[in-house]
Amino acid sequence: MAAAPVWSVDPRTGKHREQVAVEATAGEVDQAVRAARAAVDSLADRTVRAAFLRSAAEFLDASKDHLVEAADAETALGPVRLTGELARTSYQLRAFADIVDEGAFLGIVIDHPDDTATPPIPDLRRYKVPLGVVAVYSASNFPFAFSVPGGDTASALAAGCPVVVKAHPDHPATSELVASVIRRAAARHGIPEGVLGLVHGFEAGVELVKHPLVSAAGFTGSVRGGRALFDAASSRPVPIPFHGELGSLNPVVITAEAAAERGEQIGAGLAGSMTLGVGQFCVKPGLVFAPAGADGDRVVASLTDAVSDTGAGVLLDHRMRDNFVAGVAERAGLPDVDAPVTPGAGSEHTVSPGFLTVPAQRLATDGGDHDLLLEECFGPVTVVARYEDDAQVTAVLSRLPGNLSATVHLSEGEAAGKGRGAEILAELTPLAGRVLVNAWPTGVAVAPAQHHGGPYPATTSTSTSVGGTAVERWLRPVAYQNTPEALLPPELRDDNPLGLPRRYEGRQEL
Amino acid sequence: MAAAPVWSVDPRTGKHREQVAVEATAGEVDQAVRAARAAVDSLADRTVRAAFLRSAAEFLDASKDHLVEAADAETALGPVRLTGELARTSYQLRAFADIVDEGAFLGIVIDHPDDTATPPIPDLRRYKVPLGVVAVYSASNFPFAFSVPGGDTASALAAGCPVVVKAHPDHPATSELVASVIRRAAARHGIPEGVLGLVHGFEAGVELVKHPLVSAAGFTGSVRGGRALFDAASSRPVPIPFHGELGSLNPVVITAEAAAERGEQIGAGLAGSMTLGVGQFCVKPGLVFAPAGADGDRVVASLTDAVSDTGAGVLLDHRMRDNFVAGVAERAGLPDVDAPVTPGAGSEHTVSPGFLTVPAQRLATDGGDHDLLLEECFGPVTVVARYEDDAQVTAVLSRLPGNLSATVHLSEGEAAGKGRGAEILAELTPLAGRVLVNAWPTGVAVAPAQHHGGPYPATTSTSTSVGGTAVERWLRPVAYQNTPEALLPPELRDDNPLGLPRRYEGRQEL
Repeated sequence: MAAAPVWSVDPRTGKHREQVAVEATAGEVDQAVRAARAAVDSLADRTVRAAFLRSAAEFLDASKDHLVEAADAETALGPVRLTGELARTSYQLRAFADIVDEGAFLGIVIDHPDDTATPPIPDLRRYKVPLGVVAVYSASNFPFAFSVPGGDTASALAAGCPVVVKAHPDHPATSELVASVIRRAAARHGIPEGVLGLVHGFEAGVELVKHPLVSAAGFTGSVRGGRALFDAASSRPVPIPFHGELGSLNPVVITAEAAAERGEQIGAGLAGSMTLGVGQFCVKPGLVFAPAGADGDRVVASLTDAVSDTGAGVLLDHRMRDNFVAGVAERAGLPDVDAPVTPGAGSEHTVSPGFLTVPAQRLATDGGDHDLLLEECFGPVTVVARYEDDAQVTAVLSRLPGNLSATVHLSEGEAAGKGRGAEILAELTPLAGRVLVNAWPTGVAVAPAQHHGGPYPATTSTSTSVGGTAVERWLRPVAYQNTPEALLPPELRDDNPLGLPRRYEGRQEL
Repeated sequence: MAAAPVWSVDPRTGKHREQVAVEATAGEVDQAVRAARAAVDSLADRTVRAAFLRSAAEFLDASKDHLVEAADAETALGPVRLTGELARTSYQLRAFADIVDEGAFLGIVIDHPDDTATPPIPDLRRYKVPLGVVAVYSASNFPFAFSVPGGDTASALAAGCPVVVKAHPDHPATSELVASVIRRAAARHGIPEGVLGLVHGFEAGVELVKHPLVSAAGFTGSVRGGRALFDAASSRPVPIPFHGELGSLNPVVITAEAAAERGEQIGAGLAGSMTLGVGQFCVKPGLVFAPAGADGDRVVASLTDAVSDTGAGVLLDHRMRDNFVAGVAERAGLPDVDAPVTPGAGSEHTVSPGFLTVPAQRLATDGGDHDLLLEECFGPVTVVARYEDDAQVTAVLSRLPGNLSATVHLSEGEAAGKGRGAEILAELTPLAGRVLVNAWPTGVAVAPAQHHGGPYPATTSTSTSVGGTAVERWLRPVAYQNTPEALLPPELRDDNPLGLPRRYEGRQEL
């Protein structure tokens, strides 16, 4: 049987561009994992790891024009967005290099013997070690930042874990190109190229998560695909951590006071956020609560104007386009659902942005067809639920699954603590990993305080895939008891030869 | 159908003592979970939580005589051990109260806006919030410290999570007693008694992990039971974290030099560790590597003397006794396996400690009947593998599943860094969560640097069930973006009104 070809496709035409590779067989997956495993020792030295991450950033920046062109040809995301995404990606690699240098992620704790404790405490020293080979499943919508050189890969390498990436079929050529750039950076520091494996094909992805030498996995994608891989990871003879980001509705509540105060401005902001990148962001606001009545009408009118002015766009692939067109048609056909701007097919290869409205009451009770409106619809569409009173908002919020983000737009007075602001924040916090006030969820900063995760299905774990703490996903603690100084790793020695932050005899040392 | 009775049984006679309760129906499990859920808000204040934990410790100490008597009647663990275990349990509750007061577990990170970052960083503030109701599955072998008032419960309450405990059938009366003590402590602080639910029965345990309002689970027990619950937790519509401690062989390597230097002492120490508590510890050394030849013979001779001098003991229940007797007989019957002291049945209700020896070479290759020797056998038995050379040790170690602990006994010179010490530590580290030198794994200190966990099946996650970081299992991060000071939780305000340790603008503040 001939190996299945992997094609690069132009989403602007639906045409094959070139054959990039063939789908990996089980044997090839095994080979990639074993090569990654063999690279573990080459990442043991934190200084080398940090230097490698910085070289990777440098080499990506140096290849910018070439990489952006390649990615645009496969994704139609456009050079401006892709240039920004590549800058984010190299920034992220450098940020993780800084984290490696600092060493706080090692979680060093040193306790000396204490006979007054119950039971007595011996000499105990704990830090975190890399888990081993990490499988990374690339996202369709971020060919750089959430793919081969993205946050999962960067954080895993920062932790000391080699990576095997399952490329996304929407950008196989970019994946190969970027992988070769990262491998060149590895070679500069004497790290074997197996430190970053790359495989193509759905079956290869399933093989990968089941491989006995794979110790953890990171995933960004759909609920269906992610859940299947999560189930495979959990049902292995030796289960492994699976950090998957699967789906999110990203509710937005606009209070009556906020709508009264600046309804037009909020409507325009919403249009910008929901149509950004042709609506292909995991944090796109997918469900918006606007008050019934005149103030809410102004939000809708402003949204109508702004979305009408937004041109059609190309989605990442034609399957997504078909799903979008069918998905919005099914939603728009529900009773009491209106489409002030009808989303759907544009030209042969594009989609038109739009939005739907529905009385919030329709979403407040269980079981009807309207529950479809509480499912993520990938692409430039959102649902505006018009509410009569706060109880309706509360009722619908209580029915939502987990989210990456939840947002509220408050009036000036509410933001200053007068009125319902605190109450709404308390309602939104259980729903999401990130809660925003008077802002839009699109745009996820790479920062120490970031949390890009949330209750299931936003993520399959309690971890984040963006920001410094993402490195924690690829580590496990080890404690050394009664171990002589001569045999301790330098990180755990009393004299702290590496100058690392640690908790020493119960006190934090910087 | 009449509800199934739950009996307290005397393991010294096998006789029913009293009927304690009936097995919980699905409806009763639901009731307990809902009552726990209703108690979430009562734990929101950290000051109240800490005071509650301290009162729980105080009340347990005050009821010491009564509790120890009750536990001894059901477990036959003896008043000395149980008094020590109860002291450990109240110490642990107080240690978690201190952790709650300190607040480092909140993981506070505050970033101010930074337009120079790529992409720009908004105002972002992150900390950790409780997951919700936690299900705790009690251990047979620790009626206090790993059961109703044990580490899982203490750490969950410390995190702000109410608990529903599935009682272990080996000590249902103790479980009820202790639960009433904890509830009295809760009442002192205005916390409803639902904060600590208690259910009996196997089916109730399965219902519990599947309940939609249960957000996480902790388990200590067997591989079979734990894996079944892990699978149930992972296959829920909304999967939840399952922190299970399932099983561990706890390998011990005695180097040739160490055997030459102090073979007798090591043999005697091993006897003490493997027979402690009638071998009913999850960290009992179950596989010991001793050199072939005269020095190793001295280890075995000393072990023989000491184990022969150790009397028969009562296991926690008669099913365990039957499993032990059958398990050691099956192992002893394997080719090339000797029993210098034969483990097995003692009197009608007891078991006799003993140990087996086998050439290490028998364990070095895959697939034979001797693999049974690489499975945990609960009770007072260990397997001594006699090795011809270091390569045999390496070969067997490479075949072991994950462990809670791994130990090496080194000579004075090796401990000082001469010889193979570092190499062996490097071989043991991937195998275990705690690595010991010249010590015995039994005795798990409650300390910040403790890690009681390890690669599967030692644990189903990368977490610890003992020590301060156990609290991390019951939390998830939330980030607040662009949130006005008036609406922020006090933990995240710039002026730090609660004086909490935090990472502020990239720098750790104590």
